[in-house]
Amino acid sequence: MKLLEDRIRKDGNVKEGNILKVDAFLNHQMDVELFHEMGEEWKRLFADKKINKILTIEASGIGIACVAAEFFHVPVVFAKKTQGVNLDGELLTAKVESFTKKKVYDIVVSKKFLGPEDHVLIIDDFLANGCAVNGLMELLSQAGATLEGVGIAIEKGFQAGGDALRAKGIKLESLAIVQSMDAATGEIIFR
Amino acid sequence: MKLLEDRIRKDGNVKEGNILKVDAFLNHQMDVELFHEMGEEWKRLFADKKINKILTIEASGIGIACVAAEFFHVPVVFAKKTQGVNLDGELLTAKVESFTKKKVYDIVVSKKFLGPEDHVLIIDDFLANGCAVNGLMELLSQAGATLEGVGIAIEKGFQAGGDALRAKGIKLESLAIVQSMDAATGEIIFR
Repeated sequence: MKLLEDRIRKDGNVKEGNILKVDAFLNHQMDVELFHEMGEEWKRLFADKKINKILTIEASGIGIACVAAEFFHVPVVFAKKTQGVNLDGELLTAKVESFTKKKVYDIVVSKKFLGPEDHVLIIDDFLANGCAVNGLMELLSQAGATLEGVGIAIEKGFQAGGDALRAKGIKLESLAIVQSMDAATGEIIFR
Repeated sequence: MKLLEDRIRKDGNVKEGNILKVDAFLNHQMDVELFHEMGEEWKRLFADKKINKILTIEASGIGIACVAAEFFHVPVVFAKKTQGVNLDGELLTAKVESFTKKKVYDIVVSKKFLGPEDHVLIIDDFLANGCAVNGLMELLSQAGATLEGVGIAIEKGFQAGGDALRAKGIKLESLAIVQSMDAATGEIIFR
């Protein structure tokens, strides 16, 4: 999606350690008019899918998912990040390893809000090694829900997550795929 | 706002300890079509204010704020909750005491995204004793930004936060104000 690629080039910031900072428009300050265009694009890309729910993960997935959901006319459920879940049988849970924070946390969704009747689109801001998406897919699997696809704002194409999902036959639509980036020059090359 | 009051009566759940669970439509599963109506209502209520930014707090304020921001055509900034901030001079910070979790945490916003030129509407899902809103106002004060108003989905009118803001002359628009609620009968009375 050229609009998003242009914005990443303009306002994104490449840092050492394969970090791409997009906090000016995506995950701290949020440009909802950009989110609107992204939501419309996902609706076009997933037009052939019967989707009745969007699943995302706190915190930075929520804004993108909610604006996108207006095009799908479906509710959003967000997985909560927590440490040390009280397993009382009311929750779906999975473990996720954070790429940027180098730690493992639990993600949880109430069983009330995901079940076998659900056809789900997962939306998130970043895809790198795929840990968050894999955790969300694990929740869907526990719920007996159907995964219809995955919509990502920015995929780091030089990490394995995206291609692993494609290899499984999952419909993955990343609106911008960074093929390589250079912290010294700030250059970003898109796939 | 009758639509929200009706929805709280239908899908809200009163629990012991002054807890109102609205996780079916507001802060875990999120009804974005309801958020759309709420955003339109806030736009009407704050039509006379010059607002160039919306400030909210993770996680459950983000979805409401982003959908509302589409009516204001402004970006959203969300404060992050953290414990033990590394004070490197790049962050605005304040302390907030959580009513439901009975603990104190830090909230932070990057200085890049709030400054003296900003005229800000604060949006959040709940207002009880007002700790979160007071923390956000403290960030605005540090930034030299101007508070134009506060938009809340559900105010607990039997706690002091809302009336304290009104007493300060702040324009507060709560779309539903719970005057009293009864965990035994499930009855909810709106102001």
